[in-house]
Amino acid sequence: MATAGKVIQCKAAVAWEPNKPLVIEEIEVAPPQADEVRIKIVATAVCHTDLYHLFEGMPKDGFPAVLGHEAAGIVESVGPEVTEFQPGDKVIPLFLAQCKECRFCKSPKTNQCELGAMVGKESRFTCKGKKVLQFAGTSTFSEYIVIHQIAVAKIDPAAPLDKVCLIGCGICTGYGAAVNTAKVEPGSTCAVFGLGAVGLAAVMGCKAAGAKRIIAVDLNPDKAEKAKVLGATDFVNPKDHNKPIHEVLAGMTNGGVDYSVECVGNVEVMRSALESCLPAWGVSVIVGWTEMFDIKIRPPHLISGRTWKGSMFGGFKGKDGVSEMVKAYLDKKLQLEEFITHNMTLDQINDAIELMKQGKCVRVVMSVSPE
Amino acid sequence: MATAGKVIQCKAAVAWEPNKPLVIEEIEVAPPQADEVRIKIVATAVCHTDLYHLFEGMPKDGFPAVLGHEAAGIVESVGPEVTEFQPGDKVIPLFLAQCKECRFCKSPKTNQCELGAMVGKESRFTCKGKKVLQFAGTSTFSEYIVIHQIAVAKIDPAAPLDKVCLIGCGICTGYGAAVNTAKVEPGSTCAVFGLGAVGLAAVMGCKAAGAKRIIAVDLNPDKAEKAKVLGATDFVNPKDHNKPIHEVLAGMTNGGVDYSVECVGNVEVMRSALESCLPAWGVSVIVGWTEMFDIKIRPPHLISGRTWKGSMFGGFKGKDGVSEMVKAYLDKKLQLEEFITHNMTLDQINDAIELMKQGKCVRVVMSVSPE
Ligand SMILES: NC(=O)c1ccc[n+]([C@@H]2O[C@H](COP(=O)([O-])OP(=O)(O)OC[C@H]3O[C@@H](n4cnc5c(N)ncnc54)[C@H](O)[C@@H]3O)[C@@H](O)[C@H]2O)c1
Ligand SMILES: NC(=O)c1ccc[n+]([C@@H]2O[C@H](COP(=O)([O-])OP(=O)(O)OC[C@H]3O[C@@H](n4cnc5c(N)ncnc54)[C@H](O)[C@@H]3O)[C@@H](O)[C@H]2O)c1
Ligand SMILES: [Zn+2]
Ligand SMILES: [Zn+2]
Ligand SMILES: [Zn+2]
Ligand SMILES: [Zn+2]
Repeated sequence: MATAGKVIQCKAAVAWEPNKPLVIEEIEVAPPQADEVRIKIVATAVCHTDLYHLFEGMPKDGFPAVLGHEAAGIVESVGPEVTEFQPGDKVIPLFLAQCKECRFCKSPKTNQCELGAMVGKESRFTCKGKKVLQFAGTSTFSEYIVIHQIAVAKIDPAAPLDKVCLIGCGICTGYGAAVNTAKVEPGSTCAVFGLGAVGLAAVMGCKAAGAKRIIAVDLNPDKAEKAKVLGATDFVNPKDHNKPIHEVLAGMTNGGVDYSVECVGNVEVMRSALESCLPAWGVSVIVGWTEMFDIKIRPPHLISGRTWKGSMFGGFKGKDGVSEMVKAYLDKKLQLEEFITHNMTLDQINDAIELMKQGKCVRVVMSVSPE
Repeated sequence: MATAGKVIQCKAAVAWEPNKPLVIEEIEVAPPQADEVRIKIVATAVCHTDLYHLFEGMPKDGFPAVLGHEAAGIVESVGPEVTEFQPGDKVIPLFLAQCKECRFCKSPKTNQCELGAMVGKESRFTCKGKKVLQFAGTSTFSEYIVIHQIAVAKIDPAAPLDKVCLIGCGICTGYGAAVNTAKVEPGSTCAVFGLGAVGLAAVMGCKAAGAKRIIAVDLNPDKAEKAKVLGATDFVNPKDHNKPIHEVLAGMTNGGVDYSVECVGNVEVMRSALESCLPAWGVSVIVGWTEMFDIKIRPPHLISGRTWKGSMFGGFKGKDGVSEMVKAYLDKKLQLEEFITHNMTLDQINDAIELMKQGKCVRVVMSVSPE
């Protein structure tokens, strides 16, 4: 490519400060260094974790930043020592690296990567002479990004980037939380709290795992229909009941569900999700993200026999999970279209964010650079 | 027996009110009704859960009561429809029933019994014309007790009652928490918080499961020696360090232990035990009992990959677990003597309680009725 080895000037949506609209700016993206890959982002979607950073967590040292972590693109150039990728490869950037060599990557018990926690700390973006941070190591609300090769998954050239971008976060996260982390069993009863893309993907995962009953829970009644399309057998809106939601679910299920998955990011809902499981053997999985508050629970709620787990990226190892899920999509074993309620361009990022805040979309896919 | 079918007058230690010494009283024990067994208690020990009821939980509707739930005895008489037991059988009363017929008893996923939660609510004790409650359904600080047959385990006639009484709670609870609930793997690194009989049994369980390193944690330095006898490789006293105990353990173990077991009953320690596990795959098990406070934790501590469980009676099904563990003891595969630091009689119950409060015993075994 003509741009290889040079700084690229391109467009990105910059979050200059918390709680403010993003601003489309010209930024400079440095050439990739050793082990790094520069990617042209073709499509990206907005995930609630982007909103968390901007409106909820608002970490003091977290701005200015380029948000975005659910995307797909094409390798533009590679730095020294990169052997796995070549310009032109279709890829998905990963917020969860997989080096394949550390003690974590070698263990089947986790999808964390010890090396991943160390790389990508230094941003390759500048704007108006200032360093701009790379959110989640990815920063996909930009036409180009630079990222360590352990945090990039090569995908089938046949994959449509404007669909499989969702595999970069929400789909793997929700689906895997049900299948890999909760390990939902055939014939079981499940509850999924929160029906954004993550929760809807969890519903899809419960169904794929053979759950007999899938109770979808959301405060927004507009979410019911999509949940049913993806496999939910029941929809419950906590607002329609004047007793706690865990009592409502216990009443519907002879004492509690076998599995519950929290896809909201609210510590009260996390508690409800745990309490909604059968005391004797219920498994509850936390997927929703918040670092601001403690979750609280009475010890007997666990001692009775419940299990509480958390799930990041659905328990999938970064590269392996993306390959597997892209293949599942191409084999028509996984739905993605159902999750895409809007298509926009990166310029419309603030509209996309607004739709998500108002609960009026599932995923908004934005085209960023032309393929 | 001459007493069959009649009310028995006998001695019991009555807790008339919270936070007061127990009083040795003459009580009346009704004959067993349908499905019930009357047992002569030969030996009983004090467990921290008895102290919890008396000094910590102090439930308003929990007195007067006869405490005690870790014991062994001999069947005196049986009520109608009891086929599994006969007078003279050696038995261990169970605070966790096993009916073998409900959906929980039939599932390998839990040791809860749905029927057990329903029976034994009505006491068969009176004293001075007042109903006296049966604590944990067992009330073993009494020469005789009446209990539903689903909450009685028949044991080998060769078993010495003044030893195997410990199998009725502390030994199964701690050992099983490691082996059944945490499912400690060979070669792993474990931490056990609290080195009463429950914690020491957890140490023994970790060792039996093949753990390579077992870090025993207690505020009382006198507990170190016994822990090492039972398999601990390290002893850590949080008081000897001026950083949080989970940081101390992380430093000793390259980031955290594989398994931790909380055997204290303190919500702060429960949090520490979870945080002491490796974020990527650590499993923490709560055994210590408290209903008074919430445990608190930040969601990312689970999302990183930890699992939080609770364990009642070590995950053993009541009757099956007792049989298995009595057999293990008779086959010399399980230590019990190491746990018995004092022998007394029921009259000395308040001394036994005092020793435990002061951390000066592991288990005090009291002889109650002569065999
Ligand atoms: N663990 C991970 O790896 C990971 C990855 C991606 C996203 N996340 C987190 O997952 C969560 C969901 O993400 P998303 O993109 O699907 O979000 P979203 O905003 O699209 O969906 C959240 C849904 O929760 C519903 N909700 C809000 N409060 C509720 C309540 N009290 N009870 C029931 N439902 C309620 C909303 O109506 C909405 O439908 C977020 O917290 C996000 O940060 C975690
Ligand atoms: N889940 C169950 O089925 C079950 C059954 C039996 C007992 N229990 C509970 O297990 C716990 C232990 O019972 P036990 O009979 O062994 O009690 P114990 O009183 O003999 O032992 C408790 C130990 O914890 C230590 N300790 C106190 N505070 C500590 C701290 N901050 N850090 C580290 N160690 C600390 C004490 O020094 C003591 O050695 C109790 O909470 C009891 O109620 C639960
Ligand atoms: Zn996301
Ligand atoms: Zn790795
Ligand atoms: Zn006990
Ligand atoms: Zn049962």
